[in-house]
Parts: sequence; C-alpha cells; structure tokens
Amino acid sequence: MKRFIQHSYLKPEKVDEYVHLHAHAWPEVLQMIKECNIRNYSISIRGTELYTYYEYAGDDFEADMARMAADPTTQEWWKHTRPCFLYHEEGVYYDEMQEIFYCE
Amino acid sequence: MKRFIQHSYLKPEKVDEYVHLHAHAWPEVLQMIKECNIRNYSISIRGTELYTYYEYAGDDFEADMARMAADPTTQEWWKHTRPCFLYHEEGVYYDEMQEIFYCE
Repeated sequence: MKRFIQHSYLKPEKVDEYVHLHAHAWPEVLQMIKECNIRNYSISIRGTELYTYYEYAGDDFEADMARMAADPTTQEWWKHTRPCFLYHEEGVYYDEMQEIFYCE
Repeated sequence: MKRFIQHSYLKPEKVDEYVHLHAHAWPEVLQMIKECNIRNYSISIRGTELYTYYEYAGDDFEADMARMAADPTTQEWWKHTRPCFLYHEEGVYYDEMQEIFYCE
C-alpha cells in the first residue's frame, strides 16, 4: 500500500466552487476512484491551501491512472475541478510532499 | 474511525533535528501510539510546513490521549520534539485542517 500526500493551492476566487463540488461529488467519479484502487481519499483545506491524502491498493498504478483518465465522466469532472487550481506551471498544479514518518 | 489532519510549522533551524528524530523514532513511543488506538500516522514536510495525518480507531479518544500523555517515555520524546515547532501562541503549535472530501 503506497500513500500519496499532495499539496496545492486553489485560486482564491475558486475556493467556494471547489468545496461545493466536493461536497456533492458525482457518484460515477467516486465509483471510478474505487475501481482504480484508490482508498482513504481525503482532501483538507486551510485558506487556499489544499492537502490531499490517498492510498493506492492495486498493483499497477500506471494502468489504473490511465483507466481513470480515459473515463468520460471523470474527464467532465476534471473540467470543473482543474480550473480551480493555481498552477505552478503548465499542467502542474500540485507538489508531492515528502513523508518523514509513518506508524502503521 | 475519525481522521485528524493537522498543519504546523517547524522553526527553520529545527527542521533537520525533527526529521532526524522521526527517522529514528523510539520503539516505546511507537508502541504507545498503537496501544492508544492511533493508526496510519503519517507526517509529511514541505519546507518548514508539516502535515500530520492519523486515524483514531478506539472508542474513548480523551482517555487514550490522557494515557499517552502520562507515559514517561512519550513525555521524554515530546521534550525533544515540541521545541522544534513554531508556536502560534503558548501551548498551540498546530491547526486542525478542515476535511472537505472523503472517499473510503
């Protein structure tokens, strides 16, 4: 089981929209997340900062992520969520954080 | 199962010490964490920012936290770790973050 911990910033004017979207996440998107072996997916906010935690429980991460990216409903969802982020540069909207401690 | 997601800052001059301590965490401290029903405890860093994620799997959080706080080895550990934090005010060294999305 691998853990992913990501840090990102929302555009200030998009915070409410992002929070609202995730309070009413589309069932098909949640289903695809589960089918692609993502577990314990948690997003937390502090001002405009987002902290995203999830675990990958499958055995082919690349293939599962490719499957998710090919899903038309997930693509439509991303059309709403991706513009909420402040991009570091073209296509890059989050940092992977460095885990320095883990206790199972 | 309740999730806790906390945000804090280290003193810049204490980052290396904090990272080193957690790379060599004391076995008695880890044992106490488990006995007090804390699970999946992960600490990640980004510059001087720390994000801490853990789950509580017991049924009396206050009692378990009191037990941990009464453990002499844990108290000794905290004597090393607590001074690494930049305190917001006396006794307050982290914020609880607001979880806006969760997918099991």
